[in-house]
This record gives sequence, C-alpha cells and structure tokens, in this order.
Amino acid sequence: MPAPSDSLSAEAATIDLERLLNPRSVVIVGASPTPGALGASVLGNLERGGFKGEIHLVNPKRDMISGRPCVHSIDQLPDGIDAAVLAIPRAGVIGALRELARKKTGGAVIFSAGFAEGGEEGMAEQETIGRIAREGGMAVEGPNCLGFVNNKDGVALTFVETPAANLGDGDGVAIVSQSGAMAAVLQVTLASKDLGVTLSVSTGNEAATGVQDYVEYLVDDPRTRVISMIVEQFRDPARFLDLADKAREKGKPIILLHPGKSEAARQSAATHTGAMAGDYALMRSLVEHHGVLMAETLEHLGDLTELAMRSNRFSGESGAAILTESGAFKALSLDLAEEVGLNLPEMHDADSPAMRAALPDFVPVSNPVDLTAQALVDPELYQRAIAALVGDDRVGSILLGIIQTDPATAEKKLPSIIAAIETLKPEKPVIYAGLDEGAEVLPEFISKLRTLGVACYPTAERAIRAIATLSRAPGGKAPVRPSSRKIDVSLPSGAGVVPEYLSKTILREAGLAFPDGKFAESEDAAAAAADAIGYPVVLKAQSAELSHKSDAGGVALGLESEADLRRAFNKMYADVGNYSPGLTLDGVLVEKMSAKGVEMIVGARRDAAWGPVTLVGFGGVQAEVLKDFRLLPPDLSPAEIHDELLTLKSAKLLTGFRGSAPVDLDALCEMVSELGALMMSQPRILEVDLNPVVVRGAGKGLDILDALILLGA
Amino acid sequence: MPAPSDSLSAEAATIDLERLLNPRSVVIVGASPTPGALGASVLGNLERGGFKGEIHLVNPKRDMISGRPCVHSIDQLPDGIDAAVLAIPRAGVIGALRELARKKTGGAVIFSAGFAEGGEEGMAEQETIGRIAREGGMAVEGPNCLGFVNNKDGVALTFVETPAANLGDGDGVAIVSQSGAMAAVLQVTLASKDLGVTLSVSTGNEAATGVQDYVEYLVDDPRTRVISMIVEQFRDPARFLDLADKAREKGKPIILLHPGKSEAARQSAATHTGAMAGDYALMRSLVEHHGVLMAETLEHLGDLTELAMRSNRFSGESGAAILTESGAFKALSLDLAEEVGLNLPEMHDADSPAMRAALPDFVPVSNPVDLTAQALVDPELYQRAIAALVGDDRVGSILLGIIQTDPATAEKKLPSIIAAIETLKPEKPVIYAGLDEGAEVLPEFISKLRTLGVACYPTAERAIRAIATLSRAPGGKAPVRPSSRKIDVSLPSGAGVVPEYLSKTILREAGLAFPDGKFAESEDAAAAAADAIGYPVVLKAQSAELSHKSDAGGVALGLESEADLRRAFNKMYADVGNYSPGLTLDGVLVEKMSAKGVEMIVGARRDAAWGPVTLVGFGGVQAEVLKDFRLLPPDLSPAEIHDELLTLKSAKLLTGFRGSAPVDLDALCEMVSELGALMMSQPRILEVDLNPVVVRGAGKGLDILDALILLGA
Repeated sequence: MPAPSDSLSAEAATIDLERLLNPRSVVIVGASPTPGALGASVLGNLERGGFKGEIHLVNPKRDMISGRPCVHSIDQLPDGIDAAVLAIPRAGVIGALRELARKKTGGAVIFSAGFAEGGEEGMAEQETIGRIAREGGMAVEGPNCLGFVNNKDGVALTFVETPAANLGDGDGVAIVSQSGAMAAVLQVTLASKDLGVTLSVSTGNEAATGVQDYVEYLVDDPRTRVISMIVEQFRDPARFLDLADKAREKGKPIILLHPGKSEAARQSAATHTGAMAGDYALMRSLVEHHGVLMAETLEHLGDLTELAMRSNRFSGESGAAILTESGAFKALSLDLAEEVGLNLPEMHDADSPAMRAALPDFVPVSNPVDLTAQALVDPELYQRAIAALVGDDRVGSILLGIIQTDPATAEKKLPSIIAAIETLKPEKPVIYAGLDEGAEVLPEFISKLRTLGVACYPTAERAIRAIATLSRAPGGKAPVRPSSRKIDVSLPSGAGVVPEYLSKTILREAGLAFPDGKFAESEDAAAAAADAIGYPVVLKAQSAELSHKSDAGGVALGLESEADLRRAFNKMYADVGNYSPGLTLDGVLVEKMSAKGVEMIVGARRDAAWGPVTLVGFGGVQAEVLKDFRLLPPDLSPAEIHDELLTLKSAKLLTGFRGSAPVDLDALCEMVSELGALMMSQPRILEVDLNPVVVRGAGKGLDILDALILLGA
Repeated sequence: MPAPSDSLSAEAATIDLERLLNPRSVVIVGASPTPGALGASVLGNLERGGFKGEIHLVNPKRDMISGRPCVHSIDQLPDGIDAAVLAIPRAGVIGALRELARKKTGGAVIFSAGFAEGGEEGMAEQETIGRIAREGGMAVEGPNCLGFVNNKDGVALTFVETPAANLGDGDGVAIVSQSGAMAAVLQVTLASKDLGVTLSVSTGNEAATGVQDYVEYLVDDPRTRVISMIVEQFRDPARFLDLADKAREKGKPIILLHPGKSEAARQSAATHTGAMAGDYALMRSLVEHHGVLMAETLEHLGDLTELAMRSNRFSGESGAAILTESGAFKALSLDLAEEVGLNLPEMHDADSPAMRAALPDFVPVSNPVDLTAQALVDPELYQRAIAALVGDDRVGSILLGIIQTDPATAEKKLPSIIAAIETLKPEKPVIYAGLDEGAEVLPEFISKLRTLGVACYPTAERAIRAIATLSRAPGGKAPVRPSSRKIDVSLPSGAGVVPEYLSKTILREAGLAFPDGKFAESEDAAAAAADAIGYPVVLKAQSAELSHKSDAGGVALGLESEADLRRAFNKMYADVGNYSPGLTLDGVLVEKMSAKGVEMIVGARRDAAWGPVTLVGFGGVQAEVLKDFRLLPPDLSPAEIHDELLTLKSAKLLTGFRGSAPVDLDALCEMVSELGALMMSQPRILEVDLNPVVVRGAGKGLDILDALILLGA
C-alpha cells in the first residue's frame, strides 16, 4: 500500500484552487427538487448566498429543477465548468469524476463517505479518485466532507445551512479542518464571538487535495488574518512546515488543534479517517518550531483564535499584567499563571512610579494588582491603572479581570473601561474577562470592547490560558537554519545495525566526541591498545548480532592493569560464548574509562512522514519511566537546543542543583546539532542511539559511551 | 505571637450561630440615611428582603432614619438583640463590640478592614476582638468581610446589593468564603446556572468565628445539599477534617477552592489576609483524604458545584460514557479524558448488545460513540442510545456532547433529548454540553434539562473536567481508621536531633526494619560487632552534631574483612576530625551491608496547623528535582498507602518495569503505616527522616539505611 503522501505532493501543488473555491460556474451533479436532499440544499445555499455565476444542474430524470434547466448527464454539460458538486451516492462518484475531468472541470466537492475509512475496496476507490484528479489537474475536496463556505467571495458549496457571515468588508479567520463537523462547530463559535470567517473548508479524506493545499492558498489571501486548523493527520508534513514558515513571515498565525496525545485517540482517528495517525509528540515539536500555535482543546482553539484575531501584536518578549478586584483572585491567578507558564513580571511600589501614582494609597502596587472595589467610587481608576501598564515596558499584554455583579454594577464599570481603551488606544493587547461568569452584562458593552480590539472571555481562566499560549508565539521571521550543512561520512554498504566500534568510527568522522578507543581483534592487540590509551580502560565486546552486551557479559569497566585486561578479555569471550552459542565476536573495543557526569540519552530517527528528528533526554531507568526527553527538529541551532533542554522536567540537574556544578551544556548542544546535520546529510541513516552520553562539568565536554547506527538500504 | 488557631478552638464551638445567621432582632450600628452609605445599604437589604424581626438603629446624630426610630448609642439598646452590624469605621469597632457584648448581643458582623492585614497594631486589635467575642459568647463575622446572605431564612446582613434568590422551597448550595468578593462572584455564577443558594457567608479575617464554624452549622442544615468554599487558610484544620468526615457521611459534598499551589500565591495570600498560608500539598492531601473535592480554578468550582447539585449520585466505581456527533471530537475527548484521569470504559459491538441494537448499522459501538448527524433524520436515536447506556453497568455517568448549530437544528435535537430523559428518568448522572459554544439555543431547553437534573455546560471540556473530579469523589462513609493504635517507645529527654544509632533503636522498638547493626565506641568493639553480624558490613560515624556524615568521611561501605574494618575505623575518626575539629564522635554504627533494591525516601513531620503527616517518595537527586513524593495522613491503612504509591510519577519502578521484578510494596506500606501510628502516639516526635529506604523484591522486605529523629521539648 503506497503511503498517501506519495500520491499528492508536487503535482497537486500546481492545481488552481481558485477555480474550485471562487468559481464563475458551478455544476451540481445529483441536483434535486426534494427539500432536504443534498443537491437541493447545495442549490439553496448558492441561491441564498446570491451566487452570480452560472449554475448547471445534472439529474438523469429531470428537465427542470427550481425553475432552472437541468441536463440528464455530465456529457451534456459545456466544457470548462469551474466547480462541480457531487451530491450523489458513493457508487456513482468515480464515473462522474472521470466524465468531469474529461470536460476540463476545475475542481470537485465529493460529499459521499465510505472510501478510505470503509475498508480495502473503499481505499482502492479513493486512490482512483486521486489519480483522476492528478491526471485531470483537478482540485478535489473530499470525499467524506461537508464542502466549503467562502464568505470573502460569497460562495458556498455545501449542503449544510450556512450561517450568516460576520465578515463584511473586513478580514477574518480561515478554518481548515479535515473533520466537517469540527469546521461547522468552529464556525458557530467564531460567529458568536463576532469574528468573521473568510473561508471554512473541510477536507475529509483528502484523496487529492489536502490541508496543506488550502493553507498555501490562504497564506497569500489578503483577507485571511488567522488560519485555524483541525487536523487528524498531515499527509504532506514537509510542505506544511514550509508553509508554516511562510505564514510566520507574513505575521499570519496558524492555530492547530490535533487529536492524538493519547494512544486511544490515535487508534480512534485511524478507524475514523482511514489514516494512521502519526507520532503526536514529534508532530507537535516540529510544527511548534515552525511557529504554529497548538490548541489543547476545542475551547482553547476558539479562545486562541479570538485572541490572535483581536490582537496579534504579542511580542513574546514581555509578560502579562493582570488588573483585578479581588485579593483571593490575585492569588488564584498566580497559581494558574505558574501552571500554564504565563510570565507575570513582578511589580512593586518602588519600581513602578506610574502605577503607584495611579492607585489609591491603601492599594500596594503588585502584579496582579487588586484594585479592590475602589473603581465603583473612582471610575477613573481603570484609566489611570491601564495607562500605567500601557507605558510599562515590562508589560506585553494586559488582562482585566472584572467583577461584574449585575446590570447596575456593570453599567458603572464597563463604560469607564471602554472610555479608557478609547482614550489610550493601547498598542499592546488588552483582554477582558469577567470573574463572575454568567453575570448579566449588556451585550453592547462586550461588542464595543471587541470592536476596540479587546478579546473578551467568559472566565479569567480561559483568558489566562489563551494569553499564555499567544505569549509563547514566536514573533517575526523564522530563524535562519544552518542551511543543510553537508556532513560526509563513509557508510558501510547494506542495511541493518552497525556494531558499536564501526558506529563510533562513523560518528567520530562526523565530529562527535568519544573516549579514546581502539578496536582490537585479539588479546594481545587489546593489551597493546590499552597501553597506548593508558589505564584505566573499559573493554566492550563487538558484534552486530550482540544487542545486549551487558547481559551477555560483554562489558568490563575500570580495568586498572594489563593483568586485569587479559583476565577480562578471556572471561568476556567465554561469557559471550555461553550466552549466545555460535556467535562470533568481531573483536573488542578498548576505551579510556570515562570521568563521571550526568547521564543523558541522545538519539535521532527518520520518521516516514516527518523526516529526521533528534532526541535528547535524561538517561537511566527512572527517566525512561518519566519520559523526560525532547524530540527536536534536526536543524536547530545549538542555542535553540539549549533552550529546549531547559524545558526538561529535570533540567535543574543540568544547570546545577544543591551545590552540584552545571554541566557542559554547550558541548551537549553542539553534539545534538551535529547529529541533526548528519541525519539531514545522510538519508541512509535511519536511526542513531547514543546511550549513555556522560556530560561532565562546564567546559569539560562529554563522552558518548555507547553508540549504534541503523542503516537503510 | 500566638498562632491564630489557639485563639479559637473549643470555646468558639459553643457559640450559637443561629442567632447571628437567623436573627429575630437586628441592630445596625452606624445606621445612615445617605444612599450608598454602608448602614443605608444594610437597611435597604433588610427592607427589600422583607425581614420580619425587629430592626434597631444606632447613630449618634439622628433620631429617625427612613421612618424608623434611631438611638444615639449602644447603651440605649435593649439587651439580648440577636445580631449587630457594625457599619462604622475601624476606630470605633472595639468600643462598640464591648458594649454589644455587655448588652448580651448574639453576634456581630464587622465590615471594616485594616486589622490583621494592616500590621502590628491591627493584629493586636483583631486579637482583642477575638477575646471580647469569646468572653461574651458572641459569633463575629469578620472583620474585613462583606457580611452574609441567608436565603433559606430570608435575611441578609450585608451592604452589597443582594441578587434575587433562586432558592424557592428547594435545597441549594451554601457558600463559605474567606474572601467577600469571591463569595459574591460565586453567588452570581450559581444564579446564572439556576442554582439556589441557602447561605452565602464571607468570614474575612476570622477574629473569632471561622469557616469551620459555618461548616458545622451547614452540615446539619437540611436545605444545604452542597457546601462550596473558597479558603486561603484554615485556622482550625483538625476540626475542619472532622466536619468533612461528617459531611461525607451525610452525603453532602464539600467543594474547596484554595489558592497556594504556587509560592507566589502563598506570599500574596499572606499580605492580603494577614495570615501565613500553610503548605498547599499537605492541606490538599489531608482534605482529599477526608472526602473534600478540590476545585482547580474558580471556573471549575462553579462547574463542580453545578454537577454536585444536579446529580450527587456519582458512584466513583464506574466510568463515564460519551455520546457525541463527531469522530474528531471523539478523539479529542479521549485525549482530554486521559489528561484529567476520567475513565472511559471501552465498549465494542461484541460486548454491548443493547448499544449495538440502538445504533444504525454504519455506526460501530465505541466509547465515546460518534452518532454522526444521524439523529437529525432519526431523533429516536438519542433515546435508544441513552437507554443502552443507562442499562449498562460499566457506565457510571453519561455525557452528551451535542452539535447545536443554530436555533432550527437545536429545535430538532433538544426536544428529543429532553423527551429521552423524561422517559428514562435515569438514576445515573446525565450531563449535557454543546460542542459549538455560543450556538443559539433556546434558554428554555437548557432550563428544562436542568430541572430534569441534567448539569449543562457551555463546552464539553468543562463537562469532562467536572465529571472527572466528581467521579473521584469517595462515596459513602469515611473509612474506619486504625483507631489511634498506641505505639510505646522510650524517647530520650531533651529537644533536638537524635543521632542515627539512637534513632534506629527507637524506631526498631516501634517495629521498623533495619539491617542488623550494633553501636560500638571503640575499634575493638567495632571489630567484635562486625564479627557477630557477619561481613560485609558498613561503618557509620555517630554524633548528633554530625548532620552530613558522607561529606565528612563518616560512611564506609562494603567492608569485607576485619582488616578492612580496622583501616576504615581509623580513617573515619581522622577524616571526621579534620572535617569538624573539636567534634567528638559518640562512636560508630556497624551494620550488615544491605542487598540492592529501589531507593525510596520515607519521612514524617508534625505541621503546626495540620498535625502529623507522613511522606513517601523516590530517593536520589533526580526524584528530588521532580518532587516525586506523596504527603499522606498518618492514619491511612497499608491498603490506602498502596493506592497512593501507585499514583507516583515513577510508580512503574515499583510494580516492575522492563522485566525488573515488582518490589515489596507490602513491606513499604506496612512501614509507612507504622510510622504514621508512631507520629500519632508520640507528640514529642517532630520529624522523622528515613533516607534511603531500600525496598527489595516482593516478599523480601526492605532496609532503612539511615534514620534521624527530631524531638521537641
């Protein structure tokens, strides 16, 4: 079975999505006069939306539908219609698509389900759809999708009744979702937040055209300011990462919700979409490094989208300030900020003269600051306090956590806040949240705040979570990567595991650091090697077939003298022989005994979909249980790797804990970066395992004690 | 400075809260005709609420206020008024309270701030308030509070305009909060959820009457079904834990929001309430073991309260089932359920005949189950699917995650769901959540669901989090604790650190297991001891003043012979002498060298507020960085300790990982339970540190390698 990603790629990029998404002419195959039938709903949506282009209808049994002429078959249609909607059962889809391709149709929407998610036969049919589309240069949305709504051009090809668009002449959010239900759900939520949607598309099974095609189209769309995605599997990850870089350079946030954190969700996605979900942690690491913002839940996706639309000026440099009206809530928000990683810069009377002057005497400056109920008698307080924060360079964004109580109280507070925003016109994001969810507040106040660029949340918790995520968004351009630094090494021919001594030779060639060591095929050669290296030494049995050296008695540590060494050599050959009768050792590796340090694991692997990644984490069985490691893109700079290592759960062990000295992080980061470059240079290397890597004190380097390479053919 | 907890306790428990909270007569000290003045607002609330008792007013300058007679001073009042409200500045509070006590007033509400949170002088004044209250047998709410609203008896003593009560003749939630703002905020949120509030009280600085007094009152209140609390510091923890047991036995959930997870929040609480916040982890462990449900945020508090009010029939035994209408959402909810620890029992076609029969052919049985959009054409589907889950013993609660879309769609779906609930009258909790937050749904539908006992949430995420917490709530009676098993040991006189050999003698007396060992004061005695014990042995220097034995050269491991031992003995005395000149060792401890195992830390300490707790966790520096330990009540049974140990992050190391055998958990749990009993029996023991404890394979026991006791006077 060919990987779906093979069937898309290059050619698919050349199709013209504009013909499908903004057609001058449309044909509904399976048009129907019956209310509720798919074909009737599609026509209803086109008519309600005031579609100005030609509408063609196909129905084998009708000459006229809703007062429009209808032909009996596709071959009666003119050539070159821009977009076709296949509102017909699955059985007719492939035949219809073939005819549409012959008629030079620009693109097609296929609603029917039962393809890749319906077993072997459906999978084969889906591949046929893909082939027809590629050969005919057609864009195909679906199968198993709900169609699309293009509000910026006023056309919807969907059987779902489409909500009124808030878009107007402004810009808005584009929704790109594999799931049709999720696209529809997000549309409803964004509408309730007064956010306009430029395009909402559900890509379904992606037989020919996938999420990355729509993202490419949207990155260049001037009216789309934020792209919100729900994806269960990326079929062309490399292209998506390139597009993410482009979006980042244009300052257009991509927000992604992707199930699959749990094994159960990955299995569920497989049965639901017919696609095997990939490795979530790997996907997440890569897309985040390309500037994509990850949403944790559907609620979070809507919240992030609102914040990104209303205020995409997060610098990521400075923290947030919180203005609130309760001391207890102040403490609660400190707890939550720590949990979600939101930086709340400390502020005090002494270092915050503007805020000090803004507050009444009995309120000390702090962050969060508790204004108490004072604004009820001194409504100007909001303006003075917000102004102080607007002028404070430590503050990147401002959250107002307000007690609204009832209509009367809200009417005392909200106008003052609105006036403050109108007067101050803050550049930095200001976010509003009521502390008392459900309080009656005139909807006009919230609408007004939103038109002033203030994102509004029903609870402060949600605001804090959204601000934390947006504050981490990388600003500006994608970092310049060490551009495919080519690392040459000589690899043995043939696929399979490369034994330690050869793996180390290859990796040493690539610039990685190992203890002084020599391969020796006899007892005397081993003694001579040890003599040259200097005692104490380590002896390790070498053979591609010996994967558990220690268990087999194939490792001897701390040999202090030639006598020790010779005894260990003979015992090792005997022990390994007993452990694996018939196994012949290539020889032994004699190595300088390494100094002590922190034990790490470093590795790399080549994912079928996402390409090479590196891995760094803590060694030992406990770290393995705790999964304390990071998966990283292969092209990170040592400085970026450094930042990543500091996010490990046990990072304190690297930076010095309880008087222990910090370790040589520079050496570790250089090494991981080198390994990444090697993976990018040598596509035959499928996997590298360096375990353990002993990292010594700062400036003292590291030793890779064991190494294994897995080669492809 | 005496601990605040000393000043309450026994006497406070005898006061009659009913007089304060449900008074037949009230006096407002500081009555005022000026709209907006505190005294005027209190009177307004009494009048609006239709208070039927006597109202007395005190104002030195008025004879009449709002048509009511007014006296000039407290001594003109009759004796025995039930409740007084002090709507006067701080300076007059103590004098007024003294006079009120003389007049046999039942209780008082003190609004003014600036006591314990205002520095030394305020702290002293607050203590005076406490003394007057105790001596006069008065309940005192505050100072620094907003008063209370008692909807069940129709009386409010507060200056805040009180919202209309939803309580009617039903039962409801009681709110007990130290923060007045948080009490008010929660009242608003609960009202918006159509939940009635029986009593909302803010206890402020708790000079005399604290949260535990109100909880005691409410545990016996028949109309209070759930107690929701916001507490920054418990001033009488032991009493609160007893009350929590009582509430649990009555099936009355206590839900608690308590800031202080972060250091920053603990500091903030200290400046805000004038009280030092205690140890959050310790508090949380203890209250949870007494059946209290912890809310993580204010939003979560409201959500849990709704779920507990609408359906407090969670068994905690069985998991949840989710009915939804999107495959992608199904995967997302599997992710979230794993994250928050909600058990979703697996369901399949083969093991779920009722659900299989309920679903259309093309929908496989699973949990969550994706009904697709089928209910739009087959609205009976909801009823069939819910009925299947109601009859399924694996399912403890049912979440409906529904796509609402727009009023027309909601009108197709909601009536079917409502009809299903009305027909089925499920005993188990049914919870409703829209997937598309903000969709327009007729409020009547939500109201109807709520009257049917269905908790309703704006997003499914919130529903899942709330169900996860409620599902963990312990049902039924508090477990019977090993009733103060008395452990006798002989403790040395005098406070301070007890050296290892003596600590071990004491702990061995208490039944704890140590390697064979003997204390020896000379080289020859050490050699004789080693001979009796059998080599290999360990030698450890002993002195109360030597706290870092290893650093001082005071530990020698793996001594194989008498020669080894004598050499080590002399080196140890020399090294320790060099390390701490002038220090005289008591002698050495000679111990059998222990077998290998998993290194744990076990300990116990006596918290000034919460009493004794035990601690178990993983040993070693990495575990210390990761804080992988549990704080436990001292009276847990070994079986309960076992369950707790399985929640450690590295629990896999205990139960067998990668072929390693499981460890002797029984021995470890017995030992921790024994240590807890010792702490409860011997109040002079302030702290015990057992580090490391080496736990061997199952059935092979454990060794405590080092032990230290800290004694109080």
